[in-house]
Formats: sequence, C-alpha cells, structure tokens
Amino acid sequence: MSGVNPIAIALDAMGGDHAPEMVVRGADLARQRHPHVRFLLFGIESRLKPLLERAPALAQIAEIRHAEDVVRGEDRPSVALRSGRASSMRLAIDSVRDGQAAAVVSAGNTGALMAMAKFVLKTMPGIDRPAIASYFPTSRGESVMLDLGANVNCDANNLVQFAVMGNVFARTVLGVLEPSVGLLNIGSEDQKGSDALREANAFLRDATLPGSYFGFVEGNDIVAGTVDIIVTDGFTGNVALKAIEGTTKLYSDFLRQAFRSSWTAGLGYILARPSLNKVRARTDPRRYNGAMLLGLNGIAVKSHGGTDAFGFANAIGVAVDMLQHGFLDKIRQDLERVSGSAASPAAAAL
Amino acid sequence: MSGVNPIAIALDAMGGDHAPEMVVRGADLARQRHPHVRFLLFGIESRLKPLLERAPALAQIAEIRHAEDVVRGEDRPSVALRSGRASSMRLAIDSVRDGQAAAVVSAGNTGALMAMAKFVLKTMPGIDRPAIASYFPTSRGESVMLDLGANVNCDANNLVQFAVMGNVFARTVLGVLEPSVGLLNIGSEDQKGSDALREANAFLRDATLPGSYFGFVEGNDIVAGTVDIIVTDGFTGNVALKAIEGTTKLYSDFLRQAFRSSWTAGLGYILARPSLNKVRARTDPRRYNGAMLLGLNGIAVKSHGGTDAFGFANAIGVAVDMLQHGFLDKIRQDLERVSGSAASPAAAAL
Repeated sequence: MSGVNPIAIALDAMGGDHAPEMVVRGADLARQRHPHVRFLLFGIESRLKPLLERAPALAQIAEIRHAEDVVRGEDRPSVALRSGRASSMRLAIDSVRDGQAAAVVSAGNTGALMAMAKFVLKTMPGIDRPAIASYFPTSRGESVMLDLGANVNCDANNLVQFAVMGNVFARTVLGVLEPSVGLLNIGSEDQKGSDALREANAFLRDATLPGSYFGFVEGNDIVAGTVDIIVTDGFTGNVALKAIEGTTKLYSDFLRQAFRSSWTAGLGYILARPSLNKVRARTDPRRYNGAMLLGLNGIAVKSHGGTDAFGFANAIGVAVDMLQHGFLDKIRQDLERVSGSAASPAAAAL
Repeated sequence: MSGVNPIAIALDAMGGDHAPEMVVRGADLARQRHPHVRFLLFGIESRLKPLLERAPALAQIAEIRHAEDVVRGEDRPSVALRSGRASSMRLAIDSVRDGQAAAVVSAGNTGALMAMAKFVLKTMPGIDRPAIASYFPTSRGESVMLDLGANVNCDANNLVQFAVMGNVFARTVLGVLEPSVGLLNIGSEDQKGSDALREANAFLRDATLPGSYFGFVEGNDIVAGTVDIIVTDGFTGNVALKAIEGTTKLYSDFLRQAFRSSWTAGLGYILARPSLNKVRARTDPRRYNGAMLLGLNGIAVKSHGGTDAFGFANAIGVAVDMLQHGFLDKIRQDLERVSGSAASPAAAAL
C-alpha cells in the first residue's frame, strides 16, 4: 500500500453539522499527515468547488464527484436507504463497492450510513451482523469497545464475532500485539448475566484467538483499561460510551468553574496549565473521533457529526490505519481460526 | 416521627470491608446528625461490645443484638438465603419485619441483601419486582437512577413501576417538587429501543404522575441532569453507573498526575486547592453512598462495601430521610394513582 499507488478515500462531503467546509479542511489536514492518500469528495459540486479552490494542495489530490442529494440527520435509515440513492453518502459508499475507493468516511447520520453500507457492501462471510466500534483513552492506554448501537439485541454468536473483530482492531490500529478481551457484564462470576453472555463466555474461554480472554468485566473496567477490547451488545455499549462522554464533560465543566471561582484559583490554573493541557490533549474527544463499521466487505468510518476539521482528519486517519494494516484480510483469517476450533457457540453446543 | 419516639434503625454491623469498626463509627457520626434516632446493632457481641464501650454516647442509644453468623461478600444470594438465617444481615432484616426497627442499613453483599429483604419483607402490593436505586451529582444538581442491578430483564410494567418509585424518591429525599422522568434508550425517537421501552414510553406519556415525563434520554443525559429520574433495566443501569464511577476515578487520577508532574503545577494546585476541594466535596462518592432497595414492605439501604464511617453515616441518613418523608406511604398512593389511570401498560394495551 505504500509509495507508488496512492490510497483513494471516499469522503461524504455533505455529512456532519459543519459540512462541507469542515470535511474539506479535514481532508486538507489529513493530506499532510498521510502523503500517499488521495480523496474522492462526494457532494454538491457548486458548493465544493470554491472550497477546493481555496485549498490548492488538496485540490491536486482530490476529485469532486457530484451528488445532488444529501441524507439529513433526522432521516430514518429505511427512508435514507430507499430514497437516498443519489445522496453524497450513498455514492461515496458505492465507490468503495466499485473499487474506486478503498474506504469511506462520513460524519453524517449513523443509522443511514450503517443501513446503506450494509446494503451496498454486504456483510462479510462469517459475520452475522456488522457492529460499530470506537476506541478511547483509559488509565493504561487505549481500549476499543463494540457494539455501540448497531444491534440492540445480540446472541452469543454475535458477541463472539465482535470479539474477533475487536481483537483485529486492537492488534492492527492500536498496535497491541496480544490484546485481552472482556465481555461486559454486571458481575465477574460465571453465572451472571444473560444466556447469550454466559454462552459467549464459555466459548471464548476455549477459543484460540491471538492474545487472551479475560472473562467478564464491569462498567468501571471500561476506562480502567482492564482489557483492550470490551465486547457488548449495541444497547449497553451505546449507553456506556455516552455515559463516559457525559461524565468527561461534567468534570471538565466542574474544573472550569473551580478555576474561575477565585483569583487565586485562576492563578493556580495558569501555573498548572501546561500539565493540564497534557491531560486535555490525552483525553481530547477529537483524538478519538472515528467509529468503525466492522464486519462489512469494505472499510467504513463514521466521524462524530459535530466534529471539526481536526477531528475529521483523525477519522480519516483511522480509515488509513485500517487499510495499511490489511484489516479486512486479518478479520477473515481470524474468523477461520475461530471457526476451525468449534465453528460457533451454537455449533459447539450441539 | 419527630420528637418523642426515636426512630430505630437496624444495622448489619458485620457487613462491609471494614466492618464492624466502620459501622460503629458510622453510627456514631449519624447519631450526631440525627438526634432522634436509635440503633440496633446486629453482629458478633464479643466484637461489638468493646467498640461500643469506646463510644459512650452511641452506647446510650444503641443496643447490641447478637448474631453468630456473617454473610460473606462471595456468598451467592441463594446460599445466603438458605443458610444465613442466623446472620447479622438476616436478623437485621427480620427486625424490620417484626416492627422492632423502621429500616435496615447494610454494607454487605448486595445480592444476598436483596434476596433476603425480598424474602422477609416481601414485595409491596402493586410492584412486580423491587429495584435498586441510587442518586449522584449532575450538572444541574442530583438525579436518581434505577434499576441498578436487581433485574437483568425488565418488561414495560417493571419500568413504569420503577418510574413511580423513582418519582417518590426524587420528591421526598431529593426535595424536587415536580420531578421529570426519562427512560434510558439509545436515541430519542419514539421507534428506538426494545418493545418494553416503547411500551413503557407510550404509557408514561399518558400517566398522571406528579411532575413530568420527558421521554427517552441517552447515556450522556444521566450526569447532564436532563431529568431527575432515569429509569432503566438493571443490566444497563448497573453498567452505566459503574462506567460513570470509573470515569470519575480516571479523571481524578489524571488530574493528580498532572498536578504532580512539575513544581509549577504543584504550586498551581496549592493556589487552586480551596476551589478544587469544593468540586471534590460536591462529587465525593461517600456523599452519594447508599443505594435504596425500593418496592419492599420496608426501608432497606445498601451502603457501598468499601465505604468508611463517613459514607456509612450517609447511608443511614438516606434511611432516615426516607422514613421521615413517609416514603412507603407515598409510593402506595402513587401506585394507586397510576393504576387508577390505566392499571398498567399491559392492561392499557387490552
């Protein structure tokens, strides 16, 4: 992937609260970090052209592909799927299926992106349901969690497949050679939780994935970094991730109030600022922008809708990382390895 | 309840990591805050007697009730229920059933406490399943969330009953006159989430509870204080609460590291300390110690197992608050009010 042939990334230039300006500026930032990348910008040409004219270096490696339609944030996935065939999101995904782009990045409607990506790219053989994954800072480094909302209910097979995909993500993008996997539950004892959790737990104990299987973990383990990969259903994962984001915001608000509450506190802030900025940089949500749609025949990354250019460039970076590490091939290999051991929890139970 | 007749509170003196010392010191602190309270201390007499001798003011209003057995943290609820009849936890609960005490407080095994309390005190008429509730600081003040782990799966009826109980808690203990209720989900649109959530949502929209029904809320709304009462199943609630606790810890660890990373940062800390201490006091987990077992014919409060005397005194304070506000009677009234409107989601659907 390096050197001669640049990687083509399809961008949904109309997706996100601050699109298309934010997307074009994000691409311009990503271009500087990833010199071997080029972009296909899907969106309304009359809006994209003037933006690209103001970014001449980007214009050299970017191509506008006109899309007359835009998926809105409030569109239901089924509606977007039916009537959004000429949308920037859909055409960007189509370009991955057609081999014109190697990955797609969008800051648009998550549900619509998942529905379209599933319909166009199809689910990977060996995966029953794609999942949404994201990574975030912990006490020990970074961890990845999935599913974050694609599947409200999950059976044991789904959870095992999420473990396989999360494992590959941790090894490739996060660079953890022997990652540990934990199943999110409300206690660590084997008898805790739903049937699906207990069945997946029993199966993963005997599976031969690279790294290790830790067992059940609890809510506080997510950011403690107890494991590198937290596997859960989409309902619990979505609530947990948003609860963590909300708490992060609460504490930064509390701190800001504290430092503003007196002049001595303000002076204290000025003295401590360089150290505090390091914490802020380490936990900057824009650094962790980019949720991955895993389990599809193609790389699709969802940026936060409200992000800025810096955050969007990081979402592009996630896609580049996944491509450079041969993410899809590694998942295929690991699925074979797991199915070689016992096919699936369902088959193992027979 | 005020003045002449002191309120008797039963304490499981052997429950918790630092019992029985922590419990006796916690009771001694609570005594100073609540002068009209007296205690029944259930536990091993030979261990409690010397502790009480060193707390003469407490000894005047406390009575030791010998219990030869202790429920351990690792005991399964079913085992504790079967073989823990002579335990301090069980005898403390029995004393509430027998009218000797008005409430029980324990820092012991949560599962065992719930199983025993359910068995001995029985579930309140109109409630299908008791729930565990807790309250915590938010951007706007304090909110209460339930269930936190008693029920892994919940139907619409359970969720509606949790809303009623949480509503009474917010009005009485938190002092919110017209509290708002939200159902925890992964999106705010009516079609999101499980059948149980959608059914409970439709029912609560038309219910005539004091205060207001907000609709669906998401994980980030929990600590944002979007609503006063967050209703969810025990699995999601448990994970979310622990994720919030874990994130709180992560940020205080990050901050401590930042302030220690240079001498200027250390000096900054000293200057900002009075303001930072206010934040710390506001978010001190010991202030929010005390999970309520709601839906039983009696008041039962679970203290965090690892708490200190200050935290245990707060758990006692929660029990005192619930008693003084006639918590159980108010729940009975509100259940009638809700069932008067449509009996239950199940009945309403007929």
